[in-house]
Amino acid sequence: MNIADVARAAGVSQTTVSHTLSGKRPVAEATRQRILALIEELGFRPSEVARSLRTQRTNTIALIIPDIANPFYPELARGLQDVVDPSQMQVFICNTDGLAHSEADFLDLMAARGVDGMVTVSFHLKESDFDSVTKAGIALVRLGDYADEGTSDTVATAQQTGMAEATGYLVGRGRRRIAFIDAPHGLNGLGQRFDGYCDGLRAAGLPLRTDYVVETGYTRAGGRTGMATLLQVEPRPDAVLCANDLVAIGALDVLRDARIRVPEEMAVVGFDDIEAASMVSPALTTVRNRAYEMGRTAGQLLISRLVDAYDGPKRHIVLPTDLVSRESA
Amino acid sequence: MNIADVARAAGVSQTTVSHTLSGKRPVAEATRQRILALIEELGFRPSEVARSLRTQRTNTIALIIPDIANPFYPELARGLQDVVDPSQMQVFICNTDGLAHSEADFLDLMAARGVDGMVTVSFHLKESDFDSVTKAGIALVRLGDYADEGTSDTVATAQQTGMAEATGYLVGRGRRRIAFIDAPHGLNGLGQRFDGYCDGLRAAGLPLRTDYVVETGYTRAGGRTGMATLLQVEPRPDAVLCANDLVAIGALDVLRDARIRVPEEMAVVGFDDIEAASMVSPALTTVRNRAYEMGRTAGQLLISRLVDAYDGPKRHIVLPTDLVSRESA
Repeated sequence: MNIADVARAAGVSQTTVSHTLSGKRPVAEATRQRILALIEELGFRPSEVARSLRTQRTNTIALIIPDIANPFYPELARGLQDVVDPSQMQVFICNTDGLAHSEADFLDLMAARGVDGMVTVSFHLKESDFDSVTKAGIALVRLGDYADEGTSDTVATAQQTGMAEATGYLVGRGRRRIAFIDAPHGLNGLGQRFDGYCDGLRAAGLPLRTDYVVETGYTRAGGRTGMATLLQVEPRPDAVLCANDLVAIGALDVLRDARIRVPEEMAVVGFDDIEAASMVSPALTTVRNRAYEMGRTAGQLLISRLVDAYDGPKRHIVLPTDLVSRESA
Repeated sequence: MNIADVARAAGVSQTTVSHTLSGKRPVAEATRQRILALIEELGFRPSEVARSLRTQRTNTIALIIPDIANPFYPELARGLQDVVDPSQMQVFICNTDGLAHSEADFLDLMAARGVDGMVTVSFHLKESDFDSVTKAGIALVRLGDYADEGTSDTVATAQQTGMAEATGYLVGRGRRRIAFIDAPHGLNGLGQRFDGYCDGLRAAGLPLRTDYVVETGYTRAGGRTGMATLLQVEPRPDAVLCANDLVAIGALDVLRDARIRVPEEMAVVGFDDIEAASMVSPALTTVRNRAYEMGRTAGQLLISRLVDAYDGPKRHIVLPTDLVSRESA
């Protein structure tokens, strides 16, 4: 028995039910009476909802991200802000550098400060780390891919499918020695990109060569290190998939310095499609990860709980990817 | 009579005086006694200092910026975070979109939340808007260039000199019809870039042509609009200075589409030297505005007040610029 049920029975929107309960915005008296009567009739306990309505609003949302220097996140923040702005909600951005202790610290701090909602991209936190947040009645949206996604709203990207498709694209262009510059292993969700690479190799009947897989930082500098390592391997790869665009741009730096022609001698594919992907030369072929859309969707999920008092089951949204073919592969 | 005076008289650091007063960290007993005796002798009223020491610390700093999608600001945030991290201070980033009401809202919100320090880049706020912040004992550092810089610590860039130098550089390469794509007029500090352009023209004996000055948005899209407008002017400019790199990258977009060769037919110079400046093709010649250094310096000014209990006069730091010569001019 929740707000959605009351709304359905009363033939009104959930927003109207929510406004009737909160008294924050005017509702026509006849409608209000009908809703209140139904609530009594249906044995609906407003106290259950009251928790989710939280009378003590701060109109603030925390966005916790791992790397503000990765343009993916500013774009995601933009999408979130555009959706919550009309509700006069303010967004604080917390940059954790992807460090476990910093992720935990910001989570605690923001919960203690009584934000109304929280959107998190975490490399390290487990589902149980969010218990205090959800118990405090804070609306939570977790971004990325999680094995244990039962207890909060989530928005993820079809990373595995996207990376498998990119691998297939390279195979289709005659590449057979396809390497992968990976993010550090064990970070929430990111393993799916590697899994997609493996899927793609398997589909093409190509072996997985461990010396073609390099684990490095998730940055331009990481891409430089990774590419430099791969150039030592014999036989040299003829293509490289990168865990994100910054890594791919770092790989391009090294290839340019080494005067290795892209894509003729080495094809390069990124992941994310940040704005810089179309700025570099050669322009980067990449897998589009919809940053703005992800932020926007997270914002809609929050607004549905905070403004429209949606109180139904958790929602798990997966956004599709596209392969964006440019010059580097 | 302040902490600095006591420290000087006692022959110890301000930090030691501060620790003696706050009791937060151990001070050698003999030193402690000497400091306390001096404080009495000098008629120093610790209550004056108590205000600046603020016992109720939250260990949080707000960074208020106009455009998180401009990579200049994430880099600035990086510099700030690197300096304050060792003091276990957490940074919230607030993105105002450069809107006057949003700047004011975040200022109020952060002051109400009791942050210890605040670093602001504001297009609209006046000195008096910060009164409540400084009265609340919040350490404040304002970034940019301000006419009325008396009442808070500030960090600015020598924007005017930098832009004058860039203008001179173009003149030195034979350009005579130099246009300027400007940010919207009237925003705090940014007028200095236009002033520098005027200085440069004057130094070269070139006239200021109003049809060569376009006022537009401070973004890539703004640069596209600005460049498109300039291409209608007769005679066509042979060089364009841009208010920032995003604007310059937008200008390059239009020139590429119009098949106008850069720099042969049109030289383009940016401002900031964001990472993308070296990624675009042709690589962007620009005026380096030290984002990381600006953030780092702001952090040091905050730490001096919050951790080292510096209580002296306001400091006004101006960072130099460099002309970074690449391919576009």
